[in-house]
Amino acid sequence: MGKMKKATARKRTGITAAQFNKMMYENVPLARLFGFRAISIGHGTARVRLRFHTDVTRAGGTVSGPALMGLADVALFAVVLGMIGKVEMAVTTSLTINFLRKPGPVDVIAEARILKLGKRLAVGECALYSEGDPEMVAHVTGTYSIPPR
Amino acid sequence: MGKMKKATARKRTGITAAQFNKMMYENVPLARLFGFRAISIGHGTARVRLRFHTDVTRAGGTVSGPALMGLADVALFAVVLGMIGKVEMAVTTSLTINFLRKPGPVDVIAEARILKLGKRLAVGECALYSEGDPEMVAHVTGTYSIPPR
Amino acid sequence: MGKMKKATARKRTGITAAQFNKMMYENVPLARLFGFRAISIGHGTARVRLRFHTDVTRAGGTVSGPALMGLADVALFAVVLGMIGKVEMAVTTSLTINFLRKPGPVDVIAEARILKLGKRLAVGECALYSEGDPEMVAHVTGTYSIPPR
Amino acid sequence: MGKMKKATARKRTGITAAQFNKMMYENVPLARLFGFRAISIGHGTARVRLRFHTDVTRAGGTVSGPALMGLADVALFAVVLGMIGKVEMAVTTSLTINFLRKPGPVDVIAEARILKLGKRLAVGECALYSEGDPEMVAHVTGTYSIPPR
Repeated sequence: MGKMKKATARKRTGITAAQFNKMMYENVPLARLFGFRAISIGHGTARVRLRFHTDVTRAGGTVSGPALMGLADVALFAVVLGMIGKVEMAVTTSLTINFLRKPGPVDVIAEARILKLGKRLAVGECALYSEGDPEMVAHVTGTYSIPPR
Repeated sequence: MGKMKKATARKRTGITAAQFNKMMYENVPLARLFGFRAISIGHGTARVRLRFHTDVTRAGGTVSGPALMGLADVALFAVVLGMIGKVEMAVTTSLTINFLRKPGPVDVIAEARILKLGKRLAVGECALYSEGDPEMVAHVTGTYSIPPR
Repeated sequence: MGKMKKATARKRTGITAAQFNKMMYENVPLARLFGFRAISIGHGTARVRLRFHTDVTRAGGTVSGPALMGLADVALFAVVLGMIGKVEMAVTTSLTINFLRKPGPVDVIAEARILKLGKRLAVGECALYSEGDPEMVAHVTGTYSIPPR
Repeated sequence: MGKMKKATARKRTGITAAQFNKMMYENVPLARLFGFRAISIGHGTARVRLRFHTDVTRAGGTVSGPALMGLADVALFAVVLGMIGKVEMAVTTSLTINFLRKPGPVDVIAEARILKLGKRLAVGECALYSEGDPEMVAHVTGTYSIPPR
Protein backbone atom coordinates (compact mmCIF):
# COMPACT_ATOMS: atom_id res chain seq x y z
CA MET A 1 0.00 0.00 0.00
CA GLY A 2 2.99 2.22 0.53
CA LYS A 3 3.58 2.24 -3.17
CA MET A 4 0.03 3.40 -3.84
CA LYS A 5 0.20 6.13 -1.25
CA LYS A 6 3.33 7.50 -2.84
CA ALA A 7 1.68 7.52 -6.26
CA THR A 8 -1.34 9.23 -4.78
CA ALA A 9 0.81 11.84 -3.15
CA ARG A 10 2.58 12.51 -6.40
CA LYS A 11 -0.38 13.10 -8.64
CA ARG A 12 -3.44 11.56 -7.07
CA THR A 13 -3.30 8.57 -9.38
CA GLY A 14 -6.40 6.43 -9.30
CA ILE A 15 -6.32 2.92 -7.98
CA THR A 16 -5.94 -0.25 -10.02
CA ALA A 17 -8.43 -3.11 -10.26
CA ALA A 18 -6.25 -5.23 -7.96
CA GLN A 19 -6.08 -2.47 -5.35
CA PHE A 20 -9.80 -1.89 -5.67
CA ASN A 21 -10.64 -5.58 -5.14
CA LYS A 22 -8.38 -5.79 -2.08
CA MET A 23 -10.04 -2.76 -0.51
CA MET A 24 -13.52 -3.97 -1.44
CA TYR A 25 -13.07 -7.40 0.08
CA GLU A 26 -11.64 -5.90 3.26
CA ASN A 27 -14.38 -3.32 3.73
CA VAL A 28 -17.53 -4.78 2.24
CA PRO A 29 -18.40 -8.38 3.19
CA LEU A 30 -21.30 -8.30 0.72
CA ALA A 31 -18.86 -7.97 -2.17
CA ARG A 32 -17.53 -11.45 -1.46
CA LEU A 33 -21.01 -12.90 -0.92
CA PHE A 34 -22.21 -11.39 -4.18
CA GLY A 35 -19.07 -12.48 -5.99
CA PHE A 36 -18.03 -9.06 -7.34
CA ARG A 37 -14.61 -8.60 -8.94
CA ALA A 38 -13.23 -5.60 -10.77
CA ILE A 39 -11.76 -6.72 -14.09
CA SER A 40 -10.29 -3.43 -15.24
CA ILE A 41 -10.24 0.21 -14.24
CA GLY A 42 -9.30 2.73 -16.90
CA HIS A 43 -9.38 6.48 -17.22
CA GLY A 44 -12.99 7.22 -16.41
CA THR A 45 -14.16 3.66 -16.97
CA ALA A 46 -14.43 0.39 -15.08
CA ARG A 47 -15.54 -3.14 -15.77
CA VAL A 48 -16.77 -5.34 -12.91
CA ARG A 49 -18.04 -8.92 -12.94
CA LEU A 50 -20.78 -10.57 -10.89
CA ARG A 51 -20.16 -14.31 -10.68
CA PHE A 52 -23.35 -16.29 -11.26
CA HIS A 53 -23.99 -18.58 -8.29
CA THR A 54 -26.85 -19.80 -6.15
CA ASP A 55 -26.88 -16.97 -3.64
CA VAL A 56 -27.66 -14.27 -6.21
CA THR A 57 -30.29 -16.16 -8.20
CA ARG A 58 -34.01 -15.96 -7.81
CA ALA A 59 -36.80 -18.31 -8.86
CA GLY A 60 -36.61 -18.84 -12.61
CA GLY A 61 -32.80 -18.94 -12.73
CA THR A 62 -32.30 -15.22 -13.14
CA VAL A 63 -30.09 -12.82 -11.19
CA SER A 64 -31.70 -11.01 -8.27
CA GLY A 65 -32.38 -7.27 -8.58
CA PRO A 66 -30.41 -6.25 -5.47
CA ALA A 67 -27.37 -8.10 -6.84
CA LEU A 68 -27.61 -6.05 -10.05
CA MET A 69 -27.99 -2.81 -8.11
CA GLY A 70 -25.02 -3.69 -5.94
CA LEU A 71 -22.93 -4.58 -8.98
CA ALA A 72 -23.63 -1.24 -10.67
CA ASP A 73 -22.91 0.66 -7.46
CA VAL A 74 -19.55 -1.08 -7.12
CA ALA A 75 -18.67 -0.46 -10.78
CA LEU A 76 -19.48 3.24 -10.52
CA PHE A 77 -17.51 3.46 -7.30
CA ALA A 78 -14.58 1.83 -9.10
CA VAL A 79 -14.78 4.48 -11.83
CA VAL A 80 -14.67 7.25 -9.25
CA LEU A 81 -11.77 5.76 -7.26
CA GLY A 82 -10.03 5.08 -10.56
CA MET A 83 -9.97 8.82 -11.04
CA ILE A 84 -9.48 10.29 -7.57
CA GLY A 85 -7.54 7.51 -5.88
CA LYS A 86 -8.30 5.58 -2.72
CA VAL A 87 -10.72 7.79 -0.85
CA GLU A 88 -12.70 5.61 1.46
CA MET A 89 -15.05 8.40 2.42
CA ALA A 90 -16.49 8.83 -1.07
CA VAL A 91 -20.11 7.73 -0.73
CA THR A 92 -23.04 7.02 -3.02
CA THR A 93 -25.59 9.82 -2.75
CA SER A 94 -28.15 8.56 -5.24
CA LEU A 95 -28.70 5.78 -7.74
CA THR A 96 -31.34 5.15 -10.40
CA ILE A 97 -31.73 1.78 -12.08
CA ASN A 98 -33.91 0.80 -15.03
CA PHE A 99 -34.34 -2.94 -15.35
CA LEU A 100 -34.57 -3.72 -19.06
CA ARG A 101 -34.43 -7.47 -19.57
CA LYS A 102 -34.31 -10.60 -17.43
CA PRO A 103 -30.66 -11.61 -17.14
CA GLY A 104 -29.76 -15.17 -18.07
CA PRO A 105 -28.16 -17.74 -15.71
CA VAL A 106 -24.63 -16.52 -16.40
CA ASP A 107 -22.17 -13.94 -15.05
CA VAL A 108 -23.18 -10.30 -15.34
CA ILE A 109 -20.71 -7.70 -16.61
CA ALA A 110 -20.98 -4.06 -15.56
CA GLU A 111 -19.47 -1.41 -17.81
CA ALA A 112 -19.35 1.93 -16.05
CA ARG A 113 -18.09 5.32 -17.17
CA ILE A 114 -17.81 8.78 -15.72
CA LEU A 115 -20.19 11.50 -16.91
CA LYS A 116 -18.81 14.25 -14.71
CA LEU A 117 -16.07 14.47 -12.14
CA GLY A 118 -16.60 17.64 -10.14
CA LYS A 119 -14.85 18.82 -7.01
CA ARG A 120 -17.64 17.65 -4.77
CA LEU A 121 -19.82 15.35 -6.85
CA ALA A 122 -19.12 12.66 -9.42
CA VAL A 123 -21.79 11.30 -11.75
CA GLY A 124 -21.52 8.14 -13.79
CA GLU A 125 -23.57 5.70 -15.80
CA CYS A 126 -23.34 1.94 -15.93
CA ALA A 127 -24.66 -0.64 -18.38
CA LEU A 128 -25.16 -4.25 -17.26
CA TYR A 129 -24.93 -7.21 -19.64
CA SER A 130 -25.36 -10.95 -19.30
CA GLU A 131 -22.00 -12.29 -20.42
CA GLY A 132 -22.01 -13.06 -24.12
CA ASP A 133 -25.27 -11.21 -24.85
CA PRO A 134 -25.14 -7.73 -26.43
CA GLU A 135 -28.58 -6.69 -25.13
CA MET A 136 -28.41 -4.42 -22.09
CA VAL A 137 -29.94 -6.01 -18.99
CA ALA A 138 -30.13 -2.86 -16.87
CA HIS A 139 -29.04 0.78 -17.01
CA VAL A 140 -27.91 2.71 -13.97
CA THR A 141 -26.90 6.27 -13.16
CA GLY A 142 -25.30 7.12 -9.84
CA THR A 143 -23.92 10.14 -8.02
CA TYR A 144 -21.07 10.07 -5.55
CA SER A 145 -20.05 12.63 -2.97
CA ILE A 146 -16.35 13.38 -2.91
CA PRO A 147 -14.94 14.53 0.44
CA PRO A 148 -13.08 17.84 0.66
CA ARG A 149 -9.37 17.24 0.05
CA MET B 1 -51.47 -21.76 0.35
CA GLY B 2 -54.80 -23.29 -0.71
CA LYS B 3 -56.58 -20.82 1.50
CA MET B 4 -54.81 -17.91 -0.13
CA LYS B 5 -55.57 -19.09 -3.63
CA LYS B 6 -59.27 -19.32 -2.75
CA ALA B 7 -59.22 -15.83 -1.34
CA THR B 8 -57.39 -14.60 -4.42
CA ALA B 9 -59.94 -16.18 -6.67
CA ARG B 10 -62.74 -14.58 -4.72
CA LYS B 11 -61.59 -11.01 -4.73
CA ARG B 12 -57.89 -10.95 -5.42
CA THR B 13 -57.06 -10.37 -1.78
CA GLY B 14 -53.47 -9.40 -1.16
CA ILE B 15 -51.06 -11.63 0.69
CA THR B 16 -50.15 -11.44 4.37
CA ALA B 17 -46.71 -10.79 5.84
CA ALA B 18 -46.38 -14.50 6.72
CA GLN B 19 -47.26 -15.58 3.20
CA PHE B 20 -44.91 -12.98 1.77
CA ASN B 21 -41.98 -14.15 3.92
CA LYS B 22 -42.58 -17.79 2.97
CA MET B 23 -42.60 -16.93 -0.74
CA MET B 24 -39.59 -14.64 -0.40
CA TYR B 25 -37.43 -17.22 1.39
CA GLU B 26 -38.36 -19.88 -1.18
CA ASN B 27 -37.67 -17.72 -4.23
CA VAL B 28 -34.91 -15.31 -3.26
CA PRO B 29 -31.87 -16.75 -1.45
CA LEU B 30 -30.53 -13.21 -0.96
CA ALA B 31 -33.49 -12.40 1.29
CA ARG B 32 -32.22 -14.88 3.86
CA LEU B 33 -28.60 -13.77 3.50
CA PHE B 34 -29.63 -10.15 3.95
CA GLY B 35 -31.92 -11.01 6.84
CA PHE B 36 -35.11 -9.44 5.45
CA ARG B 37 -38.45 -10.09 7.16
CA ALA B 38 -41.83 -8.50 6.45
CA ILE B 39 -43.33 -7.27 9.73
CA SER B 40 -46.72 -6.15 8.46
CA ILE B 41 -48.53 -5.65 5.17
CA GLY B 42 -51.56 -3.37 5.22
CA HIS B 43 -53.77 -1.80 2.61
CA GLY B 44 -51.24 -0.06 0.42
CA THR B 45 -48.46 -0.19 3.02
CA ALA B 46 -45.77 -2.56 4.22
CA ARG B 47 -43.09 -2.61 6.88
CA VAL B 48 -40.00 -4.78 6.41
CA ARG B 49 -36.98 -5.25 8.67
CA LEU B 50 -33.32 -5.74 7.79
CA ARG B 51 -31.54 -7.54 10.62
CA PHE B 52 -28.18 -5.94 11.41
CA HIS B 53 -25.42 -8.55 11.14
CA THR B 54 -21.89 -8.89 9.86
CA ASP B 55 -22.71 -9.75 6.26
CA VAL B 56 -24.51 -6.48 5.56
CA THR B 57 -22.08 -4.12 7.28
CA ARG B 58 -19.27 -2.20 5.74
CA ALA B 59 -16.16 -0.63 7.20
CA GLY B 60 -17.18 1.86 9.85
CA GLY B 61 -20.00 -0.28 11.22
CA THR B 62 -22.69 1.01 8.88
CA VAL B 63 -25.13 -0.89 6.67
CA SER B 64 -24.04 -1.49 3.08
CA GLY B 65 -25.80 0.41 0.28
CA PRO B 66 -26.89 -2.66 -1.70
CA ALA B 67 -28.52 -4.06 1.44
CA LEU B 68 -30.54 -0.84 1.78
CA MET B 69 -31.54 -0.93 -1.90
CA GLY B 70 -32.57 -4.57 -1.59
CA LEU B 71 -34.57 -3.83 1.55
CA ALA B 72 -36.53 -1.03 -0.13
CA ASP B 73 -37.15 -3.16 -3.21
CA VAL B 74 -38.55 -5.96 -1.06
CA ALA B 75 -40.74 -3.57 0.94
CA LEU B 76 -42.18 -2.01 -2.21
CA PHE B 77 -42.77 -5.45 -3.66
CA ALA B 78 -44.61 -6.38 -0.44
CA VAL B 79 -46.85 -3.34 -0.84
CA VAL B 80 -47.73 -4.36 -4.38
CA LEU B 81 -48.40 -8.02 -3.56
CA GLY B 82 -50.36 -6.84 -0.53
CA MET B 83 -52.72 -5.22 -3.00
CA ILE B 84 -52.84 -7.55 -5.99
CA GLY B 85 -52.14 -10.91 -4.35
CA LYS B 86 -49.43 -13.44 -5.03
CA VAL B 87 -48.27 -12.64 -8.53
CA GLU B 88 -44.77 -13.94 -8.93
CA MET B 89 -44.39 -12.33 -12.30
CA ALA B 90 -44.67 -8.78 -11.00
CA VAL B 91 -41.22 -7.30 -11.55
CA THR B 92 -39.34 -4.17 -10.61
CA THR B 93 -38.96 -1.92 -13.64
CA SER B 94 -37.10 0.97 -12.04
CA LEU B 95 -35.87 2.18 -8.68
CA THR B 96 -34.36 5.44 -7.47
CA ILE B 97 -32.65 5.75 -4.11
CA ASN B 98 -31.39 8.85 -2.33
CA PHE B 99 -28.99 8.05 0.49
CA LEU B 100 -29.54 10.64 3.21
CA ARG B 101 -27.64 9.64 6.34
CA LYS B 102 -25.23 6.93 7.41
CA PRO B 103 -27.29 4.23 9.13
CA GLY B 104 -26.21 3.17 12.61
CA PRO B 105 -25.15 -0.36 13.60
CA VAL B 106 -28.73 -1.48 14.24
CA ASP B 107 -31.65 -3.02 12.32
CA VAL B 108 -33.09 -0.96 9.47
CA ILE B 109 -36.86 -0.57 9.11
CA ALA B 110 -38.44 0.07 5.70
CA GLU B 111 -41.81 1.77 5.57
CA ALA B 112 -43.29 1.56 2.10
CA ARG B 113 -46.54 2.82 0.66
CA ILE B 114 -48.31 2.78 -2.67
CA LEU B 115 -48.49 5.96 -4.73
CA LYS B 116 -50.43 4.51 -7.62
CA LEU B 117 -51.79 1.08 -8.44
CA GLY B 118 -52.62 1.02 -12.13
CA LYS B 119 -53.59 -1.90 -14.31
CA ARG B 120 -50.11 -2.32 -15.69
CA LEU B 121 -47.82 -0.32 -13.42
CA ALA B 122 -47.59 0.22 -9.68
CA VAL B 123 -45.53 3.03 -8.15
CA GLY B 124 -44.55 3.27 -4.51
CA GLU B 125 -42.23 5.11 -2.19
CA CYS B 126 -40.25 3.78 0.75
CA ALA B 127 -38.56 5.46 3.69
CA LEU B 128 -35.72 3.68 5.52
CA TYR B 129 -34.94 4.28 9.20
CA SER B 130 -32.32 2.99 11.61
CA GLU B 131 -34.44 1.39 14.34
CA GLY B 132 -35.15 3.86 17.11
CA ASP B 133 -34.04 6.92 15.14
CA PRO B 134 -36.65 9.21 13.56
CA GLU B 135 -34.27 10.62 10.92
CA MET B 136 -34.74 9.06 7.50
CA VAL B 137 -31.68 7.13 6.33
CA ALA B 138 -32.70 6.77 2.69
CA HIS B 139 -35.65 7.49 0.43
CA VAL B 140 -36.67 5.26 -2.45
CA THR B 141 -39.22 5.29 -5.23
CA GLY B 142 -39.88 2.22 -7.33
CA THR B 143 -42.07 1.10 -10.20
CA TYR B 144 -43.39 -2.41 -10.71
CA SER B 145 -44.82 -3.99 -13.83
CA ILE B 146 -48.02 -5.95 -13.22
CA PRO B 147 -48.66 -8.83 -15.63
CA PRO B 148 -51.92 -8.92 -17.61
CA ARG B 149 -54.56 -10.77 -15.57
CA MET C 1 -33.91 43.45 0.02
CA GLY C 2 -31.76 45.23 2.57
CA LYS C 3 -33.95 43.88 5.30
CA MET C 4 -33.50 40.35 4.11
CA LYS C 5 -29.76 40.66 3.89
CA LYS C 6 -29.61 41.81 7.48
CA ALA C 7 -31.70 38.86 8.63
CA THR C 8 -29.51 36.51 6.66
CA ALA C 9 -26.41 37.92 8.21
CA ARG C 10 -27.85 37.52 11.67
CA LYS C 11 -28.87 33.90 11.54
CA ARG C 12 -29.19 32.79 7.94
CA THR C 13 -32.96 33.01 8.02
CA GLY C 14 -34.65 31.51 5.01
CA ILE C 15 -36.56 33.61 2.54
CA THR C 16 -40.30 34.18 2.49
CA ALA C 17 -42.73 33.28 -0.29
CA ALA C 18 -42.89 36.95 -1.36
CA GLN C 19 -39.10 37.23 -1.52
CA PHE C 20 -38.90 33.94 -3.39
CA ASN C 21 -41.45 35.03 -6.00
CA LYS C 22 -39.66 38.33 -6.56
CA MET C 23 -36.34 36.58 -7.08
CA MET C 24 -37.90 33.91 -9.29
CA TYR C 25 -39.62 36.37 -11.61
CA GLU C 26 -36.41 38.42 -11.92
CA ASN C 27 -34.15 35.47 -12.66
CA VAL C 28 -36.27 32.89 -14.45
CA PRO C 29 -38.47 34.09 -17.32
CA LEU C 30 -40.00 30.63 -17.59
CA ALA C 31 -41.53 31.00 -14.12
CA ARG C 32 -43.79 33.74 -15.43
CA LEU C 33 -44.62 31.89 -18.64
CA PHE C 34 -45.48 28.77 -16.66
CA GLY C 35 -47.45 30.79 -14.11
CA PHE C 36 -45.63 29.59 -10.99
CA ARG C 37 -46.25 31.29 -7.65
CA ALA C 38 -45.03 30.28 -4.20
CA ILE C 39 -47.97 30.28 -1.79
CA SER C 40 -46.10 29.55 1.42
CA ILE C 41 -42.64 28.61 2.60
CA GLY C 42 -42.35 27.07 6.04
CA HIS C 43 -39.61 25.36 8.00
CA GLY C 44 -38.57 22.64 5.60
CA THR C 45 -41.72 22.87 3.48
CA ALA C 46 -43.08 24.90 0.57
CA ARG C 47 -46.27 25.09 -1.42
CA VAL C 48 -46.20 26.40 -4.99
CA ARG C 49 -49.02 26.83 -7.50
CA LEU C 50 -49.05 26.34 -11.26
CA ARG C 51 -51.83 28.40 -12.83
CA PHE C 52 -53.75 26.43 -15.43
CA HIS C 53 -53.69 28.26 -18.75
CA THR C 54 -53.30 27.56 -22.45
CA ASP C 55 -49.52 27.63 -22.62
CA VAL C 56 -49.07 24.70 -20.23
CA THR C 57 -51.79 22.43 -21.57
CA ARG C 58 -51.44 19.66 -24.06
CA ALA C 59 -53.92 17.90 -26.29
CA GLY C 60 -56.67 16.44 -24.16
CA GLY C 61 -56.81 19.38 -21.78
CA THR C 62 -54.16 18.11 -19.37
CA VAL C 63 -51.06 19.82 -18.01
CA SER C 64 -47.84 19.26 -19.93
CA GLY C 65 -45.13 17.11 -18.37
CA PRO C 66 -42.36 19.73 -18.53
CA ALA C 67 -44.63 22.16 -16.69
CA LEU C 68 -45.06 19.61 -13.89
CA MET C 69 -41.31 18.97 -13.74
CA GLY C 70 -40.62 22.69 -13.63
CA LEU C 71 -43.20 23.19 -10.89
CA ALA C 72 -41.67 20.50 -8.69
CA ASP C 73 -38.17 21.85 -9.28
CA VAL C 74 -39.28 25.32 -8.21
CA ALA C 75 -41.09 24.00 -5.13
CA LEU C 76 -38.05 22.03 -4.01
CA PHE C 77 -35.83 25.02 -4.63
CA ALA C 78 -38.22 27.08 -2.47
CA VAL C 79 -37.86 24.54 0.35
CA VAL C 80 -34.08 24.78 0.19
CA LEU C 81 -33.97 28.59 0.06
CA GLY C 82 -36.56 28.62 2.84
CA MET C 83 -33.93 26.94 4.99
CA ILE C 84 -30.62 28.41 3.89
CA GLY C 85 -31.67 31.86 2.72
CA LYS C 86 -31.21 33.53 -0.62
CA VAL C 87 -28.35 31.67 -2.20
CA GLU C 88 -28.61 32.12 -5.91
CA MET C 89 -25.85 29.68 -6.57
CA ALA C 90 -27.74 26.70 -5.17
CA VAL C 91 -28.42 24.47 -8.18
CA THR C 92 -30.42 21.37 -8.96
CA THR C 93 -28.09 18.41 -9.39
CA SER C 94 -30.67 15.70 -10.08
CA LEU C 95 -34.40 15.18 -10.26
CA THR C 96 -36.58 12.09 -10.60
CA ILE C 97 -40.26 12.31 -11.42
CA ASN C 98 -42.89 9.58 -11.48
CA PHE C 99 -46.01 10.57 -13.38
CA LEU C 100 -48.95 8.91 -11.63
CA ARG C 101 -52.21 10.27 -13.04
CA LYS C 102 -53.30 12.63 -15.78
CA PRO C 103 -53.87 16.03 -14.16
CA GLY C 104 -57.22 17.69 -14.73
CA PRO C 105 -57.73 21.09 -16.43
CA VAL C 106 -57.17 23.03 -13.19
CA ASP C 107 -54.29 24.58 -11.24
CA VAL C 108 -51.65 22.19 -9.93
CA ILE C 109 -50.41 22.48 -6.34
CA ALA C 110 -46.91 21.32 -5.39
CA GLU C 111 -46.24 20.35 -1.79
CA ALA C 112 -42.54 19.96 -1.17
CA ARG C 113 -40.59 19.05 1.93
CA ILE C 114 -36.97 18.60 2.89
CA LEU C 115 -35.63 15.10 3.44
CA LYS C 116 -32.09 16.13 4.29
CA LEU C 117 -30.29 19.41 4.57
CA GLY C 118 -26.57 18.70 4.58
CA LYS C 119 -23.66 21.09 4.33
CA ARG C 120 -23.20 20.49 0.63
CA LEU C 121 -26.32 18.72 -0.57
CA ALA C 122 -30.03 19.09 0.12
CA VAL C 123 -32.57 16.41 -0.80
CA GLY C 124 -36.31 16.91 -0.91
CA GLU C 125 -39.48 15.31 -2.15
CA CYS C 126 -42.49 16.91 -3.76
CA ALA C 127 -46.06 15.73 -4.32
CA LEU C 128 -48.16 17.33 -7.07
CA TYR C 129 -51.95 17.52 -6.90
CA SER C 130 -54.66 18.84 -9.20
CA GLU C 131 -56.37 21.46 -7.05
CA GLY C 132 -59.28 19.97 -5.16
CA ASP C 133 -58.32 16.34 -5.86
CA PRO C 134 -56.59 14.29 -3.13
CA GLU C 135 -55.01 11.82 -5.58
CA MET C 136 -51.35 12.52 -6.24
CA VAL C 137 -50.66 13.46 -9.86
CA ALA C 138 -46.88 13.08 -9.75
CA HIS C 139 -44.11 12.41 -7.23
CA VAL C 140 -40.69 14.00 -7.43
CA THR C 141 -37.40 13.76 -5.58
CA GLY C 142 -34.64 16.27 -6.17
CA THR C 143 -31.14 17.03 -4.98
CA TYR C 144 -29.60 20.49 -4.72
CA SER C 145 -25.99 21.47 -4.39
CA ILE C 146 -25.32 24.10 -1.75
CA PRO C 147 -22.30 26.33 -2.37
CA PRO C 148 -19.59 26.57 0.30
CA ARG C 149 -20.39 29.40 2.71
CA MET D 1 -51.09 12.54 -42.90
CA GLY D 2 -52.91 10.00 -45.07
CA LYS D 3 -49.59 8.75 -46.31
CA MET D 4 -48.35 8.16 -42.79
CA LYS D 5 -51.46 6.28 -41.77
CA LYS D 6 -51.03 3.92 -44.69
CA ALA D 7 -47.42 3.31 -43.78
CA THR D 8 -48.40 2.68 -40.19
CA ALA D 9 -51.04 0.22 -41.24
CA ARG D 10 -48.55 -1.63 -43.37
CA LYS D 11 -45.80 -2.27 -40.90
CA ARG D 12 -46.13 0.17 -38.05
CA THR D 13 -43.42 2.39 -39.45
CA GLY D 14 -42.27 5.11 -37.12
CA ILE D 15 -42.82 8.77 -37.83
CA THR D 16 -40.37 11.19 -39.41
CA ALA D 17 -38.94 14.32 -37.86
CA ALA D 18 -41.26 16.47 -39.97
CA GLN D 19 -44.32 14.50 -38.88
CA PHE D 20 -43.17 14.62 -35.29
CA ASN D 21 -42.71 18.40 -35.34
CA LYS D 22 -46.15 18.92 -36.87
CA MET D 23 -47.80 16.78 -34.21
CA MET D 24 -45.78 18.38 -31.42
CA TYR D 25 -46.65 21.95 -32.41
CA GLU D 26 -50.34 21.03 -32.70
CA ASN D 27 -50.58 19.25 -29.37
CA VAL D 28 -48.05 20.89 -27.08
CA PRO D 29 -48.01 24.71 -26.97
CA LEU D 30 -44.94 24.59 -24.73
CA ALA D 31 -42.91 23.06 -27.55
CA ARG D 32 -43.23 26.27 -29.52
CA LEU D 33 -42.54 28.47 -26.50
CA PHE D 34 -39.46 26.45 -25.66
CA GLY D 35 -38.34 26.39 -29.25
CA PHE D 36 -38.02 22.61 -29.69
CA ARG D 37 -37.48 21.10 -33.12
CA ALA D 38 -36.72 17.51 -34.04
CA ILE D 39 -33.73 17.44 -36.40
CA SER D 40 -33.69 13.73 -37.20
CA ILE D 41 -35.36 10.53 -36.09
CA GLY D 42 -33.61 7.27 -36.92
CA HIS D 43 -34.03 3.66 -35.93
CA GLY D 44 -34.00 3.90 -32.16
CA THR D 45 -32.44 7.36 -32.10
CA ALA D 46 -33.52 10.99 -32.29
CA ARG D 47 -31.87 14.39 -32.26
CA VAL D 48 -33.83 17.43 -31.07
CA ARG D 49 -32.76 21.07 -30.78
CA LEU D 50 -33.66 23.69 -28.19
CA ARG D 51 -33.27 27.16 -29.68
CA PHE D 52 -31.51 29.52 -27.27
CA HIS D 53 -33.68 32.57 -26.64
CA THR D 54 -34.72 34.82 -23.80
CA ASP D 55 -37.66 32.78 -22.54
CA VAL D 56 -35.55 29.75 -21.66
CA THR D 57 -32.62 31.53 -20.06
CA ARG D 58 -32.05 32.20 -16.42
CA ALA D 59 -29.88 34.69 -14.58
CA GLY D 60 -26.29 34.21 -15.64
CA GLY D 61 -27.12 33.51 -19.27
CA THR D 62 -27.63 29.78 -18.92
CA VAL D 63 -30.53 27.58 -20.02
CA SER D 64 -33.23 26.93 -17.44
CA GLY D 65 -33.52 23.44 -15.91
CA PRO D 66 -37.17 22.88 -16.88
CA ALA D 67 -36.29 23.68 -20.50
CA LEU D 68 -33.60 20.98 -20.42
CA MET D 69 -35.98 18.48 -18.85
CA GLY D 70 -38.62 19.27 -21.44
CA LEU D 71 -36.11 18.93 -24.25
CA ALA D 72 -35.00 15.48 -23.09
CA ASP D 73 -38.58 14.35 -22.64
CA VAL D 74 -39.43 15.41 -26.18
CA ALA D 75 -36.33 13.73 -27.61
CA LEU D 76 -37.10 10.45 -25.85
CA PHE D 77 -40.70 10.66 -26.99
CA ALA D 78 -39.43 11.16 -30.55
CA VAL D 79 -37.32 8.01 -30.24
CA VAL D 80 -40.34 6.01 -29.13
CA LEU D 81 -42.68 7.35 -31.82
CA GLY D 82 -39.87 6.82 -34.32
CA MET D 83 -40.17 3.12 -33.52
CA ILE D 84 -43.86 2.51 -32.89
CA GLY D 85 -45.44 5.19 -35.08
CA LYS D 86 -47.82 7.97 -34.20
CA VAL D 87 -49.39 6.83 -30.96
CA GLU D 88 -50.62 9.87 -29.17
CA MET D 89 -51.49 7.93 -26.08
CA ALA D 90 -47.91 6.94 -25.31
CA VAL D 91 -47.06 8.80 -22.10
CA THR D 92 -44.02 9.46 -19.99
CA THR D 93 -44.17 7.41 -16.81
CA SER D 94 -40.90 8.47 -15.22
CA LEU D 95 -37.84 10.58 -15.93
CA THR D 96 -34.54 11.03 -14.14
CA ILE D 97 -32.16 13.85 -14.96
CA ASN D 98 -28.63 14.49 -13.76
CA PHE D 99 -27.46 18.04 -14.36
CA LEU D 100 -23.74 17.87 -15.10
CA ARG D 101 -22.53 21.27 -16.31
CA LYS D 102 -23.95 24.73 -16.76
CA PRO D 103 -25.01 25.04 -20.41
CA GLY D 104 -23.64 28.00 -22.35
CA PRO D 105 -25.75 30.71 -24.02
CA VAL D 106 -26.28 28.68 -27.19
CA ASP D 107 -28.70 26.10 -28.58
CA VAL D 108 -28.88 22.77 -26.76
CA ILE D 109 -28.84 19.50 -28.71
CA ALA D 110 -30.50 16.38 -27.31
CA GLU D 111 -29.29 13.00 -28.53
CA ALA D 112 -31.64 10.25 -27.44
CA ARG D 113 -31.58 6.52 -28.01
CA ILE D 114 -33.72 3.56 -27.09
CA LEU D 115 -32.52 1.15 -24.41
CA LYS D 116 -35.50 -1.18 -24.55
CA LEU D 117 -38.68 -1.28 -26.55
CA GLY D 118 -41.06 -3.69 -24.84
CA LYS D 119 -44.70 -4.36 -25.53
CA ARG D 120 -45.86 -2.11 -22.73
CA LEU D 121 -42.87 -0.03 -21.71
CA ALA D 122 -40.11 1.74 -23.58
CA VAL D 123 -36.93 2.95 -21.87
CA GLY D 124 -34.45 5.39 -23.35
CA GLU D 125 -31.53 7.60 -22.45
CA CYS D 126 -30.73 11.08 -23.64
CA ALA D 127 -27.55 13.16 -23.55
CA LEU D 128 -27.76 16.96 -23.76
CA TYR D 129 -24.98 19.11 -25.21
CA SER D 130 -24.45 22.82 -25.68
CA GLU D 131 -24.00 23.14 -29.44
CA GLY D 132 -20.34 22.92 -30.38
CA ASP D 133 -19.18 21.63 -26.98
CA PRO D 134 -18.42 17.91 -26.55
CA GLU D 135 -18.96 17.93 -22.77
CA MET D 136 -22.33 16.53 -21.74
CA VAL D 137 -24.54 19.13 -20.05
CA ALA D 138 -27.12 16.72 -18.63
CA HIS D 139 -27.99 13.03 -18.76
CA VAL D 140 -31.55 11.75 -18.72
CA THR D 141 -33.29 8.38 -18.61
CA GLY D 142 -37.01 8.09 -19.21
CA THR D 143 -39.69 5.43 -19.38
CA TYR D 144 -42.76 5.56 -21.60
CA SER D 145 -45.95 3.57 -21.37
CA ILE D 146 -47.13 2.14 -24.68
CA PRO D 147 -50.88 1.62 -25.00
CA PRO D 148 -52.21 -1.83 -25.87
CA ARG D 149 -52.44 -2.20 -29.65
